[in-house]
Amino acid sequence: MAPALEAQEPETVAHNNLLNILNDASHRSKVTVIGSGNWGSVAAKLIASNTLRLNFFHDEVRMWVYEETLPSGEKLTDVINRTNENVKYLPGIKLGKNVVADPDLENAVKDSSMLVFVTPHQFMEGICKRLVGKIRADAEAISLVKGMEVKMEGPCMISSLISEQLGINCSVLMGANIANEIAVEKFSEATVGYRHNREVAERWVQLFYTPYFIVTAVQDVEGVELCGTLKNVVALAAGFVDGLQMGNNTKAAIMRLGLREMKAFSKLLFTSVKDSTFFESCGVADIITTCLGGRNRKVAEAYAKFGGKRSFDELEAEMLQGQKLQGVSTAREVYEVLSHRGWLELFPLFSTVHEISTGLLPPSAIVEYSEKLPRSL
Amino acid sequence: MAPALEAQEPETVAHNNLLNILNDASHRSKVTVIGSGNWGSVAAKLIASNTLRLNFFHDEVRMWVYEETLPSGEKLTDVINRTNENVKYLPGIKLGKNVVADPDLENAVKDSSMLVFVTPHQFMEGICKRLVGKIRADAEAISLVKGMEVKMEGPCMISSLISEQLGINCSVLMGANIANEIAVEKFSEATVGYRHNREVAERWVQLFYTPYFIVTAVQDVEGVELCGTLKNVVALAAGFVDGLQMGNNTKAAIMRLGLREMKAFSKLLFTSVKDSTFFESCGVADIITTCLGGRNRKVAEAYAKFGGKRSFDELEAEMLQGQKLQGVSTAREVYEVLSHRGWLELFPLFSTVHEISTGLLPPSAIVEYSEKLPRSL
Repeated sequence: MAPALEAQEPETVAHNNLLNILNDASHRSKVTVIGSGNWGSVAAKLIASNTLRLNFFHDEVRMWVYEETLPSGEKLTDVINRTNENVKYLPGIKLGKNVVADPDLENAVKDSSMLVFVTPHQFMEGICKRLVGKIRADAEAISLVKGMEVKMEGPCMISSLISEQLGINCSVLMGANIANEIAVEKFSEATVGYRHNREVAERWVQLFYTPYFIVTAVQDVEGVELCGTLKNVVALAAGFVDGLQMGNNTKAAIMRLGLREMKAFSKLLFTSVKDSTFFESCGVADIITTCLGGRNRKVAEAYAKFGGKRSFDELEAEMLQGQKLQGVSTAREVYEVLSHRGWLELFPLFSTVHEISTGLLPPSAIVEYSEKLPRSL
Repeated sequence: MAPALEAQEPETVAHNNLLNILNDASHRSKVTVIGSGNWGSVAAKLIASNTLRLNFFHDEVRMWVYEETLPSGEKLTDVINRTNENVKYLPGIKLGKNVVADPDLENAVKDSSMLVFVTPHQFMEGICKRLVGKIRADAEAISLVKGMEVKMEGPCMISSLISEQLGINCSVLMGANIANEIAVEKFSEATVGYRHNREVAERWVQLFYTPYFIVTAVQDVEGVELCGTLKNVVALAAGFVDGLQMGNNTKAAIMRLGLREMKAFSKLLFTSVKDSTFFESCGVADIITTCLGGRNRKVAEAYAKFGGKRSFDELEAEMLQGQKLQGVSTAREVYEVLSHRGWLELFPLFSTVHEISTGLLPPSAIVEYSEKLPRSL
């Protein structure tokens, strides 16, 4: 029997009201994942475990799927909804029964207050255009999209694209995140970069955080997002060192110099970028993962082994089944920014990577630019 | 024929006087390397190439050698001086004809104004005692000694030991320095940590810097020196991850968390320690080298593979031919400091490494302490 209202402490009343609000499904945040590739499916799995567990999220996680017809003749969304598995991009992993695949973008985002973007970056502009006027005005977005373009006038950040086109705030989540390893619940970390509102950041952390996926938030959208792109240039440098069999010492030095140039480049482009961001998972840890494994490193290793005699295009075609290397195009875009702004001498590693990947310099040049290095003292 | 003195510009006179002083051997800095193991011999080689090239150093580099009789019956110093090779600790590498091996410590340091200490750390106390009153009062020291002891009351820094016992200033040089790779002139880096005087630091940089060995100086003796010790604890953690076959993602996360604890621990012990030091070669690069190769990582990997069922002592004896792992003893010493000061909860990685290496926890605990991690937000 409920105690008389008069007998309750004011805090208890407030607490009960809050519980009622939280338990009322209409007040819970609805989450939509836009994208359903390898990383998108893993993100949906992480999120779905938390929306079931935490009261302030709507249980159901809607996942927009670019519809495909499978060799069996079935639709991909039908199979995902029947089996709880993305049989094409993350086979063998249960996403959670509360993940609902939806081929209709507009329907997928309806009433959602939390939008998780995780598609290849070249699709982002088109997707944003289709979403204009279709989303809640108070929605919050987060971008997991790596590899935005660096253009002459500076990098075109995906978080800015989302904010500008949709008129909503956008955070980012990056880090040392090899999707297949997280899918099997191996210990990992990620970094959320947020702009102003700590409460929003904390909500994103709660949506992704699990005991095997540790998420930390930092107030530095651009720093976190630039880490995700620039690391691929450093991965090429690390691959050259591997191909030349220079040893761990040299590789560690090149990775460190790469991290240093990532930090310097980001800070020159955005004065808000913080040094401490580069100690986070998106910085040093992602550099390590990407330079130990990763396809940029792998193809660059092969390039160096062949002494630069076989082009990146040729090796990509042979080794990556039609996928393109992000590192090579990012290195070119960074080089354009550097030469346009007169910064080439400040970034000997970045510029040397581009000059090697275009055949202007031999792979061994990666460790021969030391005389160009600015002396700190 | 020399031009008349009157005809010279005052700057030219000053310049010529300076040249005379520099060319006068008695005004040049004499350098002594104290130690002749693997790293000491490589240091002597680096230094010897620079003393020949730069006028402000005396050409001759004296290297104190703990005398040994070789199987051939010859003295080690005689063979080094005859062949220019340290046949025992760095065979196949020419040190430079200007390196003179000297078995007499007192004679080796006579008139030296630059003392380079590079011996196993357990010998340092005895060597310092023997040097009291035997060195120039204005001598400068640099320590390349890694693995000083962390005691209950804090770490016993080798640079402090030298300064206190000998009454001279002491800098340090650390970094991702695998001696055998530097010996064959593979590209590498190092960090000089200095206390106050930038000119002294610059002189040490000039003494070591070569096109393949890039040296950067930072004003942070303790930060640089603690990196050199604490990295071995992180290497054990990385080895456990390798033994458990957790993948690159997890390994990168553990390396990053280790770097973060190194930084936090160093800053709690010495308020002067700078964040930026951990971006230098002694920080992130040395963590990478040590966690990719290195004997601490290797034995820890074996320990995890055996599920902790064979002790570190046993594995060390089997794998390291009588050498002891620095990481295990450093982890214990760090643990003592942490428990003594009530900091255990702030350093879950450091404390878990110790608890694993003593058998209190299974190796898999290295990725199971995540719930203990302090949330940053």
